[in-house]
Amino acid sequence: MRAVDLIRTKRDGGELDRAAIEWFVAGVTDGTLPDYQASALLMAIVLRGMTPEETAALTEAMVRSGVRVEYPGLAYRAVDKHSTGGVGDKTSLILAPLAAACGAPVPMMSGRGLGHTGGTLDKLESIPGFRTRLYLDELRKAIATVGCAMIGQTSEVAPADRKLYALRDVTGTVESIPLITASIMSKKIAEGVGGLVLDVKCGDGAFMKNDRDALSLAQSLVATGDAAGVHTEAIITDMDTPLGRAVGNTLEVVESLETLKGRNPGPLESLSVELAARMVQMSGVEADLGAATDRVWAALSSGAGVEKFRDIIRNQGGDPAVVDDYARMPTAPDRDVFAAPRDGVVARMRAEAVGRAAVGLGAGRDRLDASIDHAVGFVVLAPPGTHVKAGEPIVEIHHRGTHGLADARALLEHAITIADTAPPTRPPVLGRVQGRMA
Amino acid sequence: MRAVDLIRTKRDGGELDRAAIEWFVAGVTDGTLPDYQASALLMAIVLRGMTPEETAALTEAMVRSGVRVEYPGLAYRAVDKHSTGGVGDKTSLILAPLAAACGAPVPMMSGRGLGHTGGTLDKLESIPGFRTRLYLDELRKAIATVGCAMIGQTSEVAPADRKLYALRDVTGTVESIPLITASIMSKKIAEGVGGLVLDVKCGDGAFMKNDRDALSLAQSLVATGDAAGVHTEAIITDMDTPLGRAVGNTLEVVESLETLKGRNPGPLESLSVELAARMVQMSGVEADLGAATDRVWAALSSGAGVEKFRDIIRNQGGDPAVVDDYARMPTAPDRDVFAAPRDGVVARMRAEAVGRAAVGLGAGRDRLDASIDHAVGFVVLAPPGTHVKAGEPIVEIHHRGTHGLADARALLEHAITIADTAPPTRPPVLGRVQGRMA
Repeated sequence: MRAVDLIRTKRDGGELDRAAIEWFVAGVTDGTLPDYQASALLMAIVLRGMTPEETAALTEAMVRSGVRVEYPGLAYRAVDKHSTGGVGDKTSLILAPLAAACGAPVPMMSGRGLGHTGGTLDKLESIPGFRTRLYLDELRKAIATVGCAMIGQTSEVAPADRKLYALRDVTGTVESIPLITASIMSKKIAEGVGGLVLDVKCGDGAFMKNDRDALSLAQSLVATGDAAGVHTEAIITDMDTPLGRAVGNTLEVVESLETLKGRNPGPLESLSVELAARMVQMSGVEADLGAATDRVWAALSSGAGVEKFRDIIRNQGGDPAVVDDYARMPTAPDRDVFAAPRDGVVARMRAEAVGRAAVGLGAGRDRLDASIDHAVGFVVLAPPGTHVKAGEPIVEIHHRGTHGLADARALLEHAITIADTAPPTRPPVLGRVQGRMA
Repeated sequence: MRAVDLIRTKRDGGELDRAAIEWFVAGVTDGTLPDYQASALLMAIVLRGMTPEETAALTEAMVRSGVRVEYPGLAYRAVDKHSTGGVGDKTSLILAPLAAACGAPVPMMSGRGLGHTGGTLDKLESIPGFRTRLYLDELRKAIATVGCAMIGQTSEVAPADRKLYALRDVTGTVESIPLITASIMSKKIAEGVGGLVLDVKCGDGAFMKNDRDALSLAQSLVATGDAAGVHTEAIITDMDTPLGRAVGNTLEVVESLETLKGRNPGPLESLSVELAARMVQMSGVEADLGAATDRVWAALSSGAGVEKFRDIIRNQGGDPAVVDDYARMPTAPDRDVFAAPRDGVVARMRAEAVGRAAVGLGAGRDRLDASIDHAVGFVVLAPPGTHVKAGEPIVEIHHRGTHGLADARALLEHAITIADTAPPTRPPVLGRVQGRMA
């Protein structure tokens, strides 16, 4: 097989067979395929696309580039959730303990924040001592005992994805539904789940800006899960506006704990419960989604969810006392507010600008190797739809010695629109895609 | 400037500005731009194209990656011809001496054969002792004394092209009109010509298979020459059938000499004269194309052309006696014929298959570093349109101990069609594209 022939085939709009795709991924993994040939093929894939069969073959080849974790002796299927990324999206911190409290095994592997979007690992690391890096035997033990672990991707899982992602990042080949699909699904399949719920974010603060692209990605992800024998479904959810009220790492952990304590009703709570219920159903704990939903609500109102989160923290070396004492997490020394410039209704709060403002304060990063400030961020006091008077606070800004404050204010000014009347709102859930097996 | 931003711009169909293109070419030339980013950008260019302005900027940046040769003190503009490559295309060996005999300075830089197409350097090296590699001062001296040199590209000329071409060759990014244009034109502009005639081959044995693509390439080449201040015109010529009667290195030198001696009338002669006449006009020797044509015919019939070829050979260290004694060049020890399988008219002789058959005999190469057999090849005895009887020879095969003979026969069988009646023929010249300055 010659790399140049594969590249030419894809360049001319042809289809690569399974053997060719396996050869390509093996060459990337062991370094025998030069990067310049890999990047040319990636660009041809970005511009020519891939069939569902090609995407499935690419995903499976990437899974086989490393180990596929197994959890022997579990009563129920291991399940996970993946979000395509947004601003204020902390559902993982809520639904993982809830689903585990219901009996579903949750070996959750997450990523870090990049650009304007946050990442679950960064949020978890606001908890003093919390280890996001476990060895595979620690992961298996956590699932067998606590029923849940929340960790970063281990080096054994889909090494081809790490190599390909690093190359895509510097060659303008990130934006491709087949490549995004293979990257997400290879990691999830290799992580050993039998069921997967995908939260495909759609709107201003999401990777997918419009409904059509979000639906295409959701369908591609679900079809690829089906092809690999994983029960998969996708929910397409709104990301025009930040999810919940907090943006920033400690602040999001606090909001997650408040939600787990039943003190934060709203779209964040309902979305977390829906996602958790689908995980509980997929795991096999409940056959029926209604019963699974009831079970999740019960775990929330009984406090079983928040206690499970405490167990997870303790099991991964974190300080379990943060659950009751938020001040044990890094807290910003300085507060300020963004106030309403005039009377009216908060009509829009553009998620991307809010996310970029948080990065400017230090809460996120533009390069994966940059360090972050867990303490800083925003709390939304007047979410879209709220009537405000001039001078009333809309956003509370948690900052450190005005670092990034002026830019954050300018971005919030761009992000927030005050109107005379409340505009129509779109529902938090925009659509659902069900897999054949789910 | 960040490479990934350039790549993304082109990937999304945008236009790169001159500064971005210069930065890219400078990075390729000095090695600071990684190959994997260059190849991703090349693939995006292949699939998204380039505007004429981008192509001109790319060409000029590639020219500036090395020296632009100058020939001080010439009475007329230096001129050259470039062919996009074909089978049996030996016009360079005829027109360069003819144009030089008319007074036009011809610093001709040519390439080697690759795949089914032949190359001028390989043909010239059939002449014992002929040096195709001259230093720049030798080149200038040859132009000042003989008026013509026929050499390979020197290392000082367009080094960015050599690097980019090597990368394109292994990344499936050869097939792109803007990239082909920049590759051809950067070398020719850097070689220091003020006038350039392009022979854009079209048909079965050419890189451009159809009239539309050939016209697009011709227009792109001419527009780029205009933009760089070089008088440029293009002739689109037929390459469905090999040009002339000989295919193979020594055999093509022999045919060229026969043509220069006025003993080979036909399409090869007339095309060579037309191309030479345009060069003579562009050089400024004659203002009018008709007068230039008369002058070239006179150089042919007087023998001035063949004597100029003798001077060129002598000046570049070759054996000038080959002009009169063809046996001083490598000659194949064995002959065979491909005979007509039935009575009829030779209707087609597909150039690509004939070229591939010649490569199989050893006359060409599939890899640029392979060595070749200058002696072997074909002489067409019955070109398309000839009536033949079963068993009459159509092609004389010059081979070495049957090496490659069986495959060559099979390819000739595929290449040659015998019909009951002569099919319509297409003219040797399919179109012309005139530059603004030409």
